[in-house]
Amino acid sequence: MNVGSTARVMKNFGLEHLVLVNPQCDRFSPEAMKMAVHAKEILESAIVVDTIPQALQGCVSAIATTGRDLHCPFPLETPRTALPWLLEPTNQPAALIFGREDRGLTNEELNYAHRFVHIPSSPVYPSLNLASAVGICCYELAQPIQPQPTLAMTSTELAPLELVEAYYQQLESFLLDIGYLYPHTANSRMEKFRQIYNRAHLTTNEVAMLRGLFRQAEWAINHPKSQNSPDPNQEP
Amino acid sequence: MNVGSTARVMKNFGLEHLVLVNPQCDRFSPEAMKMAVHAKEILESAIVVDTIPQALQGCVSAIATTGRDLHCPFPLETPRTALPWLLEPTNQPAALIFGREDRGLTNEELNYAHRFVHIPSSPVYPSLNLASAVGICCYELAQPIQPQPTLAMTSTELAPLELVEAYYQQLESFLLDIGYLYPHTANSRMEKFRQIYNRAHLTTNEVAMLRGLFRQAEWAINHPKSQNSPDPNQEP
Repeated sequence: MNVGSTARVMKNFGLEHLVLVNPQCDRFSPEAMKMAVHAKEILESAIVVDTIPQALQGCVSAIATTGRDLHCPFPLETPRTALPWLLEPTNQPAALIFGREDRGLTNEELNYAHRFVHIPSSPVYPSLNLASAVGICCYELAQPIQPQPTLAMTSTELAPLELVEAYYQQLESFLLDIGYLYPHTANSRMEKFRQIYNRAHLTTNEVAMLRGLFRQAEWAINHPKSQNSPDPNQEP
Repeated sequence: MNVGSTARVMKNFGLEHLVLVNPQCDRFSPEAMKMAVHAKEILESAIVVDTIPQALQGCVSAIATTGRDLHCPFPLETPRTALPWLLEPTNQPAALIFGREDRGLTNEELNYAHRFVHIPSSPVYPSLNLASAVGICCYELAQPIQPQPTLAMTSTELAPLELVEAYYQQLESFLLDIGYLYPHTANSRMEKFRQIYNRAHLTTNEVAMLRGLFRQAEWAINHPKSQNSPDPNQEP
Protein backbone atom coordinates (compact mmCIF):
# COMPACT_ATOMS: atom_id res chain seq x y z
CA MET A 1 0.00 0.00 0.00
CA ASN A 2 2.87 2.37 0.78
CA VAL A 3 4.44 1.98 -2.65
CA GLY A 4 1.06 2.58 -4.30
CA SER A 5 0.30 5.64 -2.17
CA THR A 6 3.80 6.93 -2.88
CA ALA A 7 3.25 6.62 -6.62
CA ARG A 8 -0.02 8.54 -6.38
CA VAL A 9 1.33 11.42 -4.34
CA MET A 10 4.42 11.64 -6.56
CA LYS A 11 2.21 12.12 -9.58
CA ASN A 12 0.05 14.61 -7.63
CA PHE A 13 3.13 16.79 -7.32
CA GLY A 14 4.62 16.20 -10.76
CA LEU A 15 7.32 13.66 -9.86
CA GLU A 16 7.72 10.46 -11.84
CA HIS A 17 11.06 8.71 -11.26
CA LEU A 18 10.62 6.06 -8.60
CA VAL A 19 13.51 3.77 -7.73
CA LEU A 20 12.94 0.83 -5.39
CA VAL A 21 15.97 -0.54 -3.55
CA ASN A 22 15.71 -4.26 -2.80
CA PRO A 23 11.93 -4.00 -2.36
CA GLN A 24 10.25 -6.49 -0.03
CA CYS A 25 6.86 -5.90 -1.59
CA ASP A 26 5.21 -6.52 -4.95
CA ARG A 27 4.63 -3.21 -6.67
CA PHE A 28 2.17 -4.92 -9.03
CA SER A 29 0.06 -6.29 -6.19
CA PRO A 30 -3.65 -5.40 -6.14
CA GLU A 31 -3.07 -3.34 -2.96
CA ALA A 32 -0.32 -1.27 -4.57
CA MET A 33 -2.28 -0.75 -7.79
CA LYS A 34 -5.42 0.18 -5.84
CA MET A 35 -3.62 2.85 -3.81
CA ALA A 36 -1.88 4.25 -6.91
CA VAL A 37 -5.29 4.90 -8.58
CA HIS A 38 -4.30 7.02 -11.61
CA ALA A 39 -0.54 6.72 -11.05
CA LYS A 40 -0.12 3.08 -12.00
CA GLU A 41 2.37 3.99 -14.70
CA ILE A 42 4.77 5.26 -12.03
CA LEU A 43 4.70 1.82 -10.41
CA GLU A 44 5.10 0.17 -13.79
CA SER A 45 8.05 2.31 -14.83
CA ALA A 46 9.75 2.16 -11.41
CA ILE A 47 13.35 0.98 -11.51
CA VAL A 48 14.36 -1.81 -9.14
CA VAL A 49 17.94 -2.01 -7.91
CA ASP A 50 19.82 -3.84 -5.16
CA THR A 51 21.65 -1.04 -3.40
CA ILE A 52 21.36 2.66 -2.70
CA PRO A 53 24.53 3.52 -4.70
CA GLN A 54 22.90 1.87 -7.73
CA ALA A 55 19.78 3.93 -7.13
CA LEU A 56 21.83 7.11 -6.99
CA GLN A 57 23.65 6.39 -10.27
CA GLY A 58 23.63 9.60 -12.29
CA CYS A 59 22.54 11.86 -9.43
CA VAL A 60 24.62 14.76 -8.21
CA SER A 61 22.76 15.50 -5.00
CA ALA A 62 20.82 13.45 -2.48
CA ILE A 63 18.87 14.13 0.66
CA ALA A 64 17.91 11.33 3.03
CA THR A 65 14.94 11.36 5.38
CA THR A 66 15.02 10.07 8.92
CA GLY A 67 12.47 9.72 11.68
CA ARG A 68 15.13 9.84 14.35
CA ASP A 69 15.68 13.21 15.90
CA LEU A 70 17.73 12.22 18.94
CA HIS A 71 21.16 10.63 19.05
CA CYS A 72 21.50 11.21 15.34
CA PRO A 73 25.08 11.70 14.20
CA PHE A 74 23.98 14.00 11.39
CA PRO A 75 22.89 17.61 11.36
CA LEU A 76 19.13 17.37 10.79
CA GLU A 77 17.21 19.93 8.79
CA THR A 78 13.54 20.51 8.12
CA PRO A 79 12.02 19.70 4.72
CA ARG A 80 11.37 23.39 4.19
CA THR A 81 14.98 24.34 4.78
CA ALA A 82 16.70 21.54 2.93
CA LEU A 83 14.52 20.30 0.06
CA PRO A 84 14.68 23.41 -2.19
CA TRP A 85 18.41 22.70 -2.44
CA LEU A 86 17.64 19.63 -4.58
CA LEU A 87 15.95 21.87 -7.14
CA GLU A 88 18.90 24.15 -7.76
CA PRO A 89 20.07 23.71 -11.35
CA THR A 90 23.61 22.80 -10.32
CA ASN A 91 22.30 19.99 -8.11
CA GLN A 92 20.32 18.17 -10.81
CA PRO A 93 19.63 15.26 -11.16
CA ALA A 94 18.75 14.92 -7.51
CA ALA A 95 17.48 12.12 -5.28
CA LEU A 96 15.30 12.05 -2.19
CA ILE A 97 15.81 8.86 -0.17
CA PHE A 98 13.20 7.26 2.09
CA GLY A 99 13.65 4.25 4.34
CA ARG A 100 11.49 1.33 5.35
CA GLU A 101 8.05 1.86 6.88
CA ASP A 102 9.09 0.15 10.12
CA ARG A 103 12.65 1.28 10.74
CA GLY A 104 13.70 3.85 8.18
CA LEU A 105 17.24 4.04 6.85
CA THR A 106 20.26 2.60 8.64
CA ASN A 107 23.13 4.90 9.50
CA GLU A 108 25.10 3.26 6.71
CA GLU A 109 22.33 4.04 4.25
CA LEU A 110 22.01 7.62 5.48
CA ASN A 111 25.67 8.06 4.66
CA TYR A 112 24.99 8.09 0.94
CA ALA A 113 23.26 11.46 1.24
CA HIS A 114 24.58 14.99 1.42
CA ARG A 115 21.93 16.33 3.73
CA PHE A 116 19.42 14.91 6.19
CA VAL A 117 15.81 15.81 6.68
CA HIS A 118 13.61 15.13 9.67
CA ILE A 119 9.92 16.05 9.50
CA PRO A 120 9.19 17.77 12.82
CA SER A 121 6.55 15.69 14.58
CA SER A 122 5.03 15.16 17.99
CA PRO A 123 7.30 13.50 20.57
CA VAL A 124 4.22 11.53 21.66
CA TYR A 125 4.03 9.75 18.30
CA PRO A 126 6.84 10.87 16.00
CA SER A 127 6.70 7.99 13.53
CA LEU A 128 5.00 8.99 10.31
CA ASN A 129 3.60 6.54 7.84
CA LEU A 130 6.04 6.22 4.92
CA ALA A 131 3.57 7.46 2.32
CA SER A 132 2.67 10.43 4.57
CA ALA A 133 6.33 11.39 4.78
CA VAL A 134 6.70 11.07 1.02
CA GLY A 135 3.60 13.20 0.53
CA ILE A 136 4.86 15.98 2.77
CA CYS A 137 8.25 16.04 1.06
CA CYS A 138 6.70 16.01 -2.44
CA TYR A 139 4.45 18.89 -1.34
CA GLU A 140 7.48 20.83 -0.11
CA LEU A 141 9.33 20.18 -3.38
CA ALA A 142 6.36 21.59 -5.29
CA GLN A 143 6.33 24.83 -3.30
CA PRO A 144 7.47 28.00 -5.03
CA ILE A 145 11.12 28.47 -4.19
CA GLN A 146 11.79 31.10 -1.58
CA PRO A 147 15.11 32.93 -1.50
CA GLN A 148 17.26 30.81 0.80
CA PRO A 149 20.26 31.83 2.84
CA THR A 150 23.02 30.65 0.52
CA LEU A 151 25.20 27.79 1.62
CA ALA A 152 28.94 28.11 1.67
CA MET A 153 29.18 26.48 -1.75
CA THR A 154 26.35 26.82 -4.19
CA SER A 155 28.03 28.32 -7.21
CA THR A 156 30.23 25.29 -7.90
CA GLU A 157 29.26 22.03 -9.45
CA LEU A 158 28.53 19.13 -7.11
CA ALA A 159 30.27 15.88 -7.91
CA PRO A 160 28.16 13.02 -9.29
CA LEU A 161 27.45 10.68 -6.40
CA GLU A 162 28.97 7.65 -8.09
CA LEU A 163 32.22 9.56 -8.32
CA VAL A 164 32.06 10.35 -4.62
CA GLU A 165 31.23 6.70 -3.95
CA ALA A 166 34.23 5.58 -6.01
CA TYR A 167 36.32 7.89 -3.90
CA TYR A 168 35.00 6.33 -0.68
CA GLN A 169 35.78 2.87 -2.01
CA GLN A 170 39.25 4.00 -2.89
CA LEU A 171 39.69 5.60 0.51
CA GLU A 172 38.51 2.51 2.35
CA SER A 173 40.74 0.28 0.29
CA PHE A 174 43.63 2.57 1.01
CA LEU A 175 42.91 2.72 4.74
CA LEU A 176 42.65 -1.06 4.93
CA ASP A 177 45.81 -1.32 2.93
CA ILE A 178 47.73 0.85 5.33
CA GLY A 179 46.31 -0.90 8.38
CA TYR A 180 44.40 2.13 9.58
CA LEU A 181 41.17 0.19 9.19
CA TYR A 182 40.54 -3.41 10.10
CA PRO A 183 37.99 -5.32 8.06
CA HIS A 184 35.67 -5.86 11.05
CA THR A 185 35.55 -2.16 11.95
CA ALA A 186 35.90 -0.64 8.49
CA ASN A 187 32.20 0.09 7.96
CA SER A 188 31.61 2.01 11.15
CA ARG A 189 34.77 4.03 10.76
CA MET A 190 34.09 4.77 7.10
CA GLU A 191 30.70 6.14 8.11
CA LYS A 192 32.45 8.89 9.96
CA PHE A 193 34.51 9.76 6.93
CA ARG A 194 31.46 9.77 4.76
CA GLN A 195 29.78 12.17 7.18
CA ILE A 196 32.66 14.60 6.93
CA TYR A 197 32.76 14.57 3.16
CA ASN A 198 29.03 14.54 2.69
CA ARG A 199 28.68 17.61 4.82
CA ALA A 200 31.28 19.26 2.64
CA HIS A 201 29.18 18.80 -0.55
CA LEU A 202 32.14 17.90 -2.69
CA THR A 203 32.62 19.24 -6.20
CA THR A 204 33.88 17.15 -9.07
CA ASN A 205 37.21 18.89 -8.95
CA GLU A 206 37.53 18.30 -5.24
CA VAL A 207 36.80 14.59 -5.59
CA ALA A 208 39.36 14.37 -8.38
CA MET A 209 41.84 16.09 -6.11
CA LEU A 210 41.15 13.75 -3.21
CA ARG A 211 41.34 10.72 -5.44
CA GLY A 212 44.63 11.95 -6.85
CA LEU A 213 45.91 12.35 -3.32
CA PHE A 214 45.10 8.79 -2.30
CA ARG A 215 46.13 7.34 -5.64
CA GLN A 216 49.48 8.93 -5.14
CA ALA A 217 49.63 7.76 -1.53
CA GLU A 218 48.75 4.23 -2.63
CA TRP A 219 51.48 4.36 -5.23
CA ALA A 220 53.94 5.56 -2.64
CA ILE A 221 53.32 2.79 -0.14
CA ASN A 222 53.53 0.14 -2.83
CA HIS A 223 56.92 1.29 -3.99
CA PRO A 224 60.08 1.17 -1.92
CA LYS A 225 61.08 4.57 -0.64
CA SER A 226 64.24 4.71 -2.79
CA GLN A 227 62.09 4.48 -5.95
CA ASN A 228 59.70 7.28 -4.94
CA SER A 229 59.59 10.27 -7.14
CA PRO A 230 57.35 12.97 -5.73
CA ASP A 231 54.27 13.61 -7.82
CA PRO A 232 53.16 17.20 -8.36
CA ASN A 233 49.60 16.02 -7.74
CA GLN A 234 50.51 15.03 -4.19
CA GLU A 235 49.51 17.24 -1.31
CA PRO A 236 50.38 17.03 2.35
CA MET B 1 -8.20 3.22 5.66
CA ASN B 2 -8.46 6.98 5.19
CA VAL B 3 -9.94 7.55 8.64
CA GLY B 4 -7.23 5.39 10.22
CA SER B 5 -4.43 7.13 8.32
CA THR B 6 -5.95 10.47 9.26
CA ALA B 7 -5.94 9.56 12.96
CA ARG B 8 -2.27 8.54 12.73
CA VAL B 9 -1.06 11.67 11.00
CA MET B 10 -3.12 13.86 13.33
CA LYS B 11 -1.35 12.34 16.32
CA ASN B 12 1.99 12.66 14.51
CA PHE B 13 1.46 16.40 14.50
CA GLY B 14 -0.13 16.77 17.93
CA LEU B 15 -3.79 17.07 16.92
CA GLU B 16 -6.45 14.97 18.62
CA HIS B 17 -10.00 16.24 18.03
CA LEU B 18 -11.51 14.33 15.13
CA VAL B 19 -15.14 14.91 14.17
CA LEU B 20 -16.77 12.68 11.57
CA VAL B 21 -19.77 14.08 9.73
CA ASN B 22 -22.26 11.41 8.67
CA PRO B 23 -19.44 8.89 8.09
CA GLN B 24 -19.99 6.17 5.50
CA CYS B 25 -17.27 3.98 6.98
CA ASP B 26 -16.73 2.09 10.23
CA ARG B 27 -13.99 3.79 12.20
CA PHE B 28 -13.59 0.64 14.32
CA SER B 29 -13.03 -1.59 11.29
CA PRO B 30 -9.81 -3.66 11.17
CA GLU B 31 -8.61 -1.55 8.21
CA ALA B 32 -9.08 1.72 10.10
CA MET B 33 -7.45 0.40 13.27
CA LYS B 34 -4.55 -1.06 11.30
CA MET B 35 -3.80 2.23 9.57
CA ALA B 36 -4.11 4.20 12.83
CA VAL B 37 -1.33 2.04 14.44
CA HIS B 38 -0.61 3.96 17.67
CA ALA B 39 -3.39 6.52 17.21
CA LYS B 40 -6.35 4.22 17.85
CA GLU B 41 -7.53 6.42 20.73
CA ILE B 42 -8.17 9.24 18.26
CA LEU B 43 -10.53 6.96 16.36
CA GLU B 44 -12.13 5.84 19.60
CA SER B 45 -12.67 9.37 20.92
CA ALA B 46 -13.83 10.76 17.56
CA ILE B 47 -17.16 12.55 17.69
CA VAL B 48 -19.78 11.55 15.13
CA VAL B 49 -22.37 14.11 14.02
CA ASP B 50 -24.88 14.44 11.21
CA THR B 51 -24.07 17.84 9.76
CA ILE B 52 -21.19 20.25 9.37
CA PRO B 53 -22.83 22.95 11.53
CA GLN B 54 -22.99 20.38 14.36
CA ALA B 55 -19.33 19.59 13.82
CA LEU B 56 -18.46 23.27 14.03
CA GLN B 57 -20.35 23.80 17.29
CA GLY B 58 -18.12 25.83 19.60
CA CYS B 59 -15.62 26.82 16.90
CA VAL B 60 -14.93 30.43 16.01
CA SER B 61 -12.97 29.88 12.80
CA ALA B 62 -13.03 27.27 10.05
CA ILE B 63 -11.06 26.60 6.91
CA ALA B 64 -12.33 24.18 4.27
CA THR B 65 -10.17 22.27 1.83
CA THR B 66 -11.03 21.75 -1.81
CA GLY B 67 -9.41 19.90 -4.68
CA ARG B 68 -11.08 22.15 -7.21
CA ASP B 69 -8.95 24.98 -8.43
CA LEU B 70 -10.96 26.05 -11.47
CA HIS B 71 -14.46 27.43 -11.61
CA CYS B 72 -14.44 27.75 -7.85
CA PRO B 73 -16.60 30.59 -6.56
CA PHE B 74 -14.28 31.12 -3.57
CA PRO B 75 -10.93 32.82 -3.29
CA LEU B 76 -8.53 29.88 -2.86
CA GLU B 77 -5.43 30.10 -0.73
CA THR B 78 -2.51 27.77 -0.14
CA PRO B 79 -2.16 25.83 3.11
CA ARG B 80 0.92 27.86 3.93
CA THR B 81 -0.87 31.17 3.56
CA ALA B 82 -4.14 30.32 5.22
CA LEU B 83 -3.64 27.65 7.89
CA PRO B 84 -1.61 29.71 10.40
CA TRP B 85 -4.69 31.89 10.73
CA LEU B 86 -6.44 29.04 12.56
CA LEU B 87 -3.76 29.14 15.23
CA GLU B 88 -4.18 32.77 16.17
CA PRO B 89 -5.45 33.01 19.76
CA THR B 90 -8.51 35.04 18.78
CA ASN B 91 -9.55 32.35 16.29
CA GLN B 92 -9.60 29.44 18.74
CA PRO B 93 -11.23 26.91 18.81
CA ALA B 94 -10.72 26.36 15.10
CA ALA B 95 -11.76 23.71 12.60
CA LEU B 96 -10.21 22.35 9.44
CA ILE B 97 -12.78 20.71 7.17
CA PHE B 98 -12.04 17.91 4.69
CA GLY B 99 -14.45 16.35 2.23
CA ARG B 100 -15.01 12.89 0.87
CA GLU B 101 -12.20 10.89 -0.73
CA ASP B 102 -14.03 10.75 -4.06
CA ARG B 103 -15.66 14.15 -4.46
CA GLY B 104 -14.61 16.45 -1.64
CA LEU B 105 -16.98 19.02 -0.19
CA THR B 106 -20.04 20.36 -1.97
CA ASN B 107 -20.35 24.10 -2.52
CA GLU B 108 -22.98 24.16 0.20
CA GLU B 109 -20.58 22.47 2.61
CA LEU B 110 -17.75 24.81 1.67
CA ASN B 111 -19.98 27.68 2.65
CA TYR B 112 -19.64 26.91 6.34
CA ALA B 113 -15.99 27.98 6.27
CA HIS B 114 -14.37 31.39 6.44
CA ARG B 115 -11.48 30.58 4.17
CA PHE B 116 -10.69 28.01 1.50
CA VAL B 117 -7.52 26.07 0.95
CA HIS B 118 -6.37 24.26 -2.16
CA ILE B 119 -3.17 22.23 -2.06
CA PRO B 120 -1.31 23.17 -5.24
CA SER B 121 -0.90 19.99 -7.26
CA SER B 122 -0.11 18.81 -10.76
CA PRO B 123 -2.77 19.53 -13.38
CA VAL B 124 -2.02 16.05 -14.76
CA TYR B 125 -3.28 14.40 -11.56
CA PRO B 126 -4.51 17.00 -9.09
CA SER B 127 -6.60 14.70 -6.88
CA LEU B 128 -4.80 13.87 -3.65
CA ASN B 129 -5.71 10.98 -1.45
CA LEU B 130 -7.72 12.28 1.51
CA ALA B 131 -5.21 11.12 4.13
CA SER B 132 -2.37 12.70 2.10
CA ALA B 133 -4.19 16.02 2.10
CA VAL B 134 -4.83 15.76 5.84
CA GLY B 135 -1.16 14.93 6.40
CA ILE B 136 0.05 17.95 4.45
CA CYS B 137 -2.33 20.28 6.29
CA CYS B 138 -1.40 18.84 9.71
CA TYR B 139 2.26 19.30 8.77
CA GLU B 140 1.62 22.92 7.85
CA LEU B 141 -0.25 23.53 11.10
CA ALA B 142 2.75 22.19 13.01
CA GLN B 143 5.18 24.56 11.31
CA PRO B 144 6.59 27.43 13.34
CA ILE B 145 4.42 30.45 12.66
CA GLN B 146 5.96 32.97 10.31
CA PRO B 147 4.98 36.61 10.53
CA GLN B 148 2.06 36.94 8.12
CA PRO B 149 0.80 39.99 6.31
CA THR B 150 -2.04 40.96 8.61
CA LEU B 151 -5.57 40.69 7.35
CA ALA B 152 -7.89 43.66 7.48
CA MET B 153 -9.36 42.40 10.74
CA THR B 154 -7.25 40.35 13.08
CA SER B 155 -7.47 42.34 16.29
CA THR B 156 -11.19 41.77 16.79
CA GLU B 157 -12.92 38.69 18.00
CA LEU B 158 -14.42 36.36 15.40
CA ALA B 159 -18.00 35.34 15.94
CA PRO B 160 -18.69 31.73 17.01
CA LEU B 161 -19.78 29.86 13.91
CA GLU B 162 -23.10 28.76 15.39
CA LEU B 163 -23.93 32.42 15.90
CA VAL B 164 -23.10 33.13 12.27
CA GLU B 165 -25.16 30.11 11.26
CA ALA B 166 -28.10 31.36 13.31
CA TYR B 167 -27.78 34.63 11.48
CA TYR B 168 -27.86 32.88 8.09
CA GLN B 169 -30.98 30.98 9.14
CA GLN B 170 -32.57 34.22 10.23
CA LEU B 171 -31.56 35.91 7.01
CA GLU B 172 -32.92 33.09 4.87
CA SER B 173 -36.16 33.05 6.80
CA PHE B 174 -36.43 36.76 6.38
CA LEU B 175 -35.69 36.67 2.66
CA LEU B 176 -38.26 33.92 2.15
CA ASP B 177 -40.68 35.90 4.20
CA ILE B 178 -40.32 38.97 2.06
CA GLY B 179 -40.48 36.98 -1.16
CA TYR B 180 -36.93 37.73 -2.16
CA LEU B 181 -36.15 34.04 -2.05
CA TYR B 182 -38.29 31.20 -3.29
CA PRO B 183 -38.03 27.86 -1.52
CA HIS B 184 -36.71 26.07 -4.61
CA THR B 185 -33.90 28.57 -5.17
CA ALA B 186 -33.18 29.57 -1.59
CA ASN B 187 -30.14 27.34 -1.13
CA SER B 188 -28.22 28.47 -4.17
CA ARG B 189 -28.92 32.12 -3.49
CA MET B 190 -28.06 31.80 0.20
CA GLU B 191 -24.69 30.35 -0.80
CA LYS B 192 -23.83 33.66 -2.35
CA PHE B 193 -24.75 35.50 0.82
CA ARG B 194 -22.71 33.10 2.88
CA GLN B 195 -19.73 33.73 0.61
CA ILE B 196 -19.96 37.44 1.14
CA TYR B 197 -20.19 37.19 4.90
CA ASN B 198 -17.68 34.41 5.25
CA ARG B 199 -15.10 36.43 3.38
CA ALA B 200 -15.80 39.27 5.79
CA HIS B 201 -14.82 37.14 8.83
CA LEU B 202 -17.60 38.52 10.99
CA THR B 203 -17.06 39.46 14.62
CA THR B 204 -19.59 38.72 17.35
CA ASN B 205 -20.59 42.35 17.50
CA GLU B 206 -21.07 42.50 13.75
CA VAL B 207 -23.29 39.42 13.76
CA ALA B 208 -25.32 40.89 16.61
CA MET B 209 -25.66 44.05 14.59
CA LEU B 210 -26.77 42.21 11.45
CA ARG B 211 -29.23 40.11 13.42
CA GLY B 212 -30.60 43.24 15.04
CA LEU B 213 -31.07 44.74 11.60
CA PHE B 214 -33.06 41.82 10.25
CA ARG B 215 -34.98 41.33 13.49
CA GLN B 216 -36.05 44.89 13.23
CA ALA B 217 -36.86 44.52 9.55
CA GLU B 218 -38.88 41.40 10.31
CA TRP B 219 -40.76 43.28 12.99
CA ALA B 220 -41.44 46.10 10.59
CA ILE B 221 -42.94 43.97 7.84
CA ASN B 222 -45.13 42.16 10.34
CA HIS B 223 -46.63 45.31 11.69
CA PRO B 224 -48.79 47.75 9.76
CA LYS B 225 -46.92 50.87 8.85
CA SER B 226 -49.03 53.11 11.04
CA GLN B 227 -47.92 51.15 14.14
CA ASN B 228 -44.21 51.32 13.29
CA SER B 229 -42.05 53.07 15.76
CA PRO B 230 -38.47 53.36 14.51
CA ASP B 231 -35.99 51.33 16.52
CA PRO B 232 -32.63 52.93 17.38
CA ASN B 233 -31.03 49.58 16.47
CA GLN B 234 -32.23 49.90 12.90
CA GLU B 235 -29.83 50.92 10.20
CA PRO B 236 -30.47 51.78 6.59
